[in-house]
Amino acid sequence: MSDILRIGIAGLGTVGSAVLQLLSKEGNLLEKRCGKKIKVTALSARDKNKSRGVNCESIKWYDNAKDLAKDSNVDVVVELIGGDSGIAYELCQDAINYGKSVVTANKALISKHGNFLAKLSEEKKVSFNFEAAVAGGIPIIKLLKEGLAANKISKICGIMNGTCNYILTKMESSGLNFEQILKEAQDLGYAEQDPSFDVDGIDTAHKLSILAAIAFGMEVNFKAVHIEGIREIKLEDIAYAKELGYRIKLLGIGKIYDNGIEQAVYPAMIPINHLMANIDGVNNAVAIDSDCAGKIVISGAGAGGLATASAVVADIIDIASKRKTFVFNKQANSLNCEATRVIDSHEGEYYLRLHVKDRPGVLANITGILSNLSISMESILQRPSRLSGDVNIVGITHLTCETKIKSALKQLAEIDSIIDKPCMIRVEDFIS
Amino acid sequence: MSDILRIGIAGLGTVGSAVLQLLSKEGNLLEKRCGKKIKVTALSARDKNKSRGVNCESIKWYDNAKDLAKDSNVDVVVELIGGDSGIAYELCQDAINYGKSVVTANKALISKHGNFLAKLSEEKKVSFNFEAAVAGGIPIIKLLKEGLAANKISKICGIMNGTCNYILTKMESSGLNFEQILKEAQDLGYAEQDPSFDVDGIDTAHKLSILAAIAFGMEVNFKAVHIEGIREIKLEDIAYAKELGYRIKLLGIGKIYDNGIEQAVYPAMIPINHLMANIDGVNNAVAIDSDCAGKIVISGAGAGGLATASAVVADIIDIASKRKTFVFNKQANSLNCEATRVIDSHEGEYYLRLHVKDRPGVLANITGILSNLSISMESILQRPSRLSGDVNIVGITHLTCETKIKSALKQLAEIDSIIDKPCMIRVEDFIS
Repeated sequence: MSDILRIGIAGLGTVGSAVLQLLSKEGNLLEKRCGKKIKVTALSARDKNKSRGVNCESIKWYDNAKDLAKDSNVDVVVELIGGDSGIAYELCQDAINYGKSVVTANKALISKHGNFLAKLSEEKKVSFNFEAAVAGGIPIIKLLKEGLAANKISKICGIMNGTCNYILTKMESSGLNFEQILKEAQDLGYAEQDPSFDVDGIDTAHKLSILAAIAFGMEVNFKAVHIEGIREIKLEDIAYAKELGYRIKLLGIGKIYDNGIEQAVYPAMIPINHLMANIDGVNNAVAIDSDCAGKIVISGAGAGGLATASAVVADIIDIASKRKTFVFNKQANSLNCEATRVIDSHEGEYYLRLHVKDRPGVLANITGILSNLSISMESILQRPSRLSGDVNIVGITHLTCETKIKSALKQLAEIDSIIDKPCMIRVEDFIS
Repeated sequence: MSDILRIGIAGLGTVGSAVLQLLSKEGNLLEKRCGKKIKVTALSARDKNKSRGVNCESIKWYDNAKDLAKDSNVDVVVELIGGDSGIAYELCQDAINYGKSVVTANKALISKHGNFLAKLSEEKKVSFNFEAAVAGGIPIIKLLKEGLAANKISKICGIMNGTCNYILTKMESSGLNFEQILKEAQDLGYAEQDPSFDVDGIDTAHKLSILAAIAFGMEVNFKAVHIEGIREIKLEDIAYAKELGYRIKLLGIGKIYDNGIEQAVYPAMIPINHLMANIDGVNNAVAIDSDCAGKIVISGAGAGGLATASAVVADIIDIASKRKTFVFNKQANSLNCEATRVIDSHEGEYYLRLHVKDRPGVLANITGILSNLSISMESILQRPSRLSGDVNIVGITHLTCETKIKSALKQLAEIDSIIDKPCMIRVEDFIS
């Protein structure tokens, strides 16, 4: 590696262009911070002729991104193509095999091939950094690996999808329903035309699986993540949550239990006075429970070209400064394969909403079912539904377990007077 | 440096003992994370015979801490003695001169001698780390230097003194006044017997001066910090703040302006729905405005032996992993001496409370003075005081400047009907 760190960027969309601009605009400042000049020496993208706001004439261009891996004038390959396999995966693999460090923002790729690429990069003694893959501009990976290096982490809990958080925040503030806000978010460019990756929780699950591996010193295990999205959240649930002192957020939660690690993504009720309940719009946040440093919460911009570029360039500066870490916080071939605690073992409080016909005996029927399963309620509201003659019976249970709640939901669904499928949302109190 | 990183600890109070315990208890985990064994080989403290929960028989003991600097079996000196000069300063200087890296939690020392020690350590090519000096267990220095390495920081704003935050939080929740809560905090060990370092804002100013140097790439300039403490905060101000939609916190704020850098510590009104308004008890938090990553807030335990030890050990792990940074985020001899923007140039909104006798014409008198100075009010409340026949006139101004407010306060104090000295608290909206 020469006195200059030479960068090859593959993929020049929003993030790639922002990285290119940042490296070119702030070259002097970055050199002062890391003591080394950082120079983009090669590029590859779909369209060579698109303007990226930077003069690229002196930079080598490759039509085939994979050629970056072989370029002897490139020290670090920055992969910003995306996708969990195909060219992105091949480029990362090739670059590492050619002895180059790799920086990527590709959560899907790491979630799927992270274990292999971590081993390969450690074997080849190169860096494999992906700060930008989780929570955009928030340096959560560095925080976990280095800032909290002295700690055992027992739990991580993140709001890690800006689209979902925007939708939930907007539903509360505007009174418009999920479909209406989704449409608006799509028009504004905050949501994809096919929003399922975001709103069904898959993107959050990718990010959670990466953070869990780092936090708990284990292999990435995306398949172990229980995933629920936010499509079924109704305006009335948001309103009742508020009345009961909660706000609904899509969380990715990883937690150590005696019998394994629970990784789950679901919309949750958060006490309204907790910091995590107050993360609005496209912002992200992660809460960490550690044994020495205690409870830490970090929040910031979870997406956007410039915020993501901030994380990509921080990774590059680490390489320029010769700062290294193990990819998942200990040697990749010594990572544990932790047992998975399935969601059916989950314990907690639960929000229930039952939309019923207002007939005598309904409440007795409902409370009878709950009582037979030893589920007791912390609070109950009965409110008229928007349809006349109907009511919503809403409540928060005391501490109980998932299997009991599932039995209850099944039995409740069979009551004659029940109109819609009963709604259940888990409560996350951030205490336990 | 051998395959083992050998640590000498000077000072075995709460933090020193926690560091010793953490290194001994979690040796295996830490070795996995940094690839190197970390071993305490030498100790020094006032009382050799006190139990520290770890068997220290095989560890070399020095009655004189300064001897640690010369011990050839020590690679890193951890200075946890405290004090801004004397033995702590001499030990750090000697250790660096002997080619050893230094880790310290000593904010007073860095605030006073940081520039010199930074230059010396860079000259001697050793690390000089002090994550624990600011905000306890929150890795704010790493966040600024490395996590946000690609960013220009325009503002930092922190709740960095647990004692003050505990007192302000407790005043609100208990309805007891400053003196009563201070007494309680002293009895609980949250406040020193001489609390002036904490409650008069000096401790926060030390920390702010360190963060500002790192954030803005300038020399530490403690003398430039304008400092006000929380002794004059009254219960009624906390109550009016709430009524007006604010909460009062002691903030340390560093901000870049065209004509220099403003560094100031004062109690401020924070909008109640902002994350920073919801940092309670002994917790700390820092809000950062950056050009790429946007607004980042990090919160956590600001004090306590274990939380501080978490930061000290993270610094040690960085050294074990050969991860280095420039002490103040660029070479110490290239740090700027930025111009200071004095508090009299401050602009913002201001909370005013005037305790007056309820006589005809008083309000006209007050509003006349404000109006003559072109200070307009965003909101005004008039409430009976606890003394009969008196009222509090309370309000928040629109955007105005410090010199006008000071003139107003002077003129208002001269009104006959004014009972106490008028109270002014700056508003921090986190927008500008």
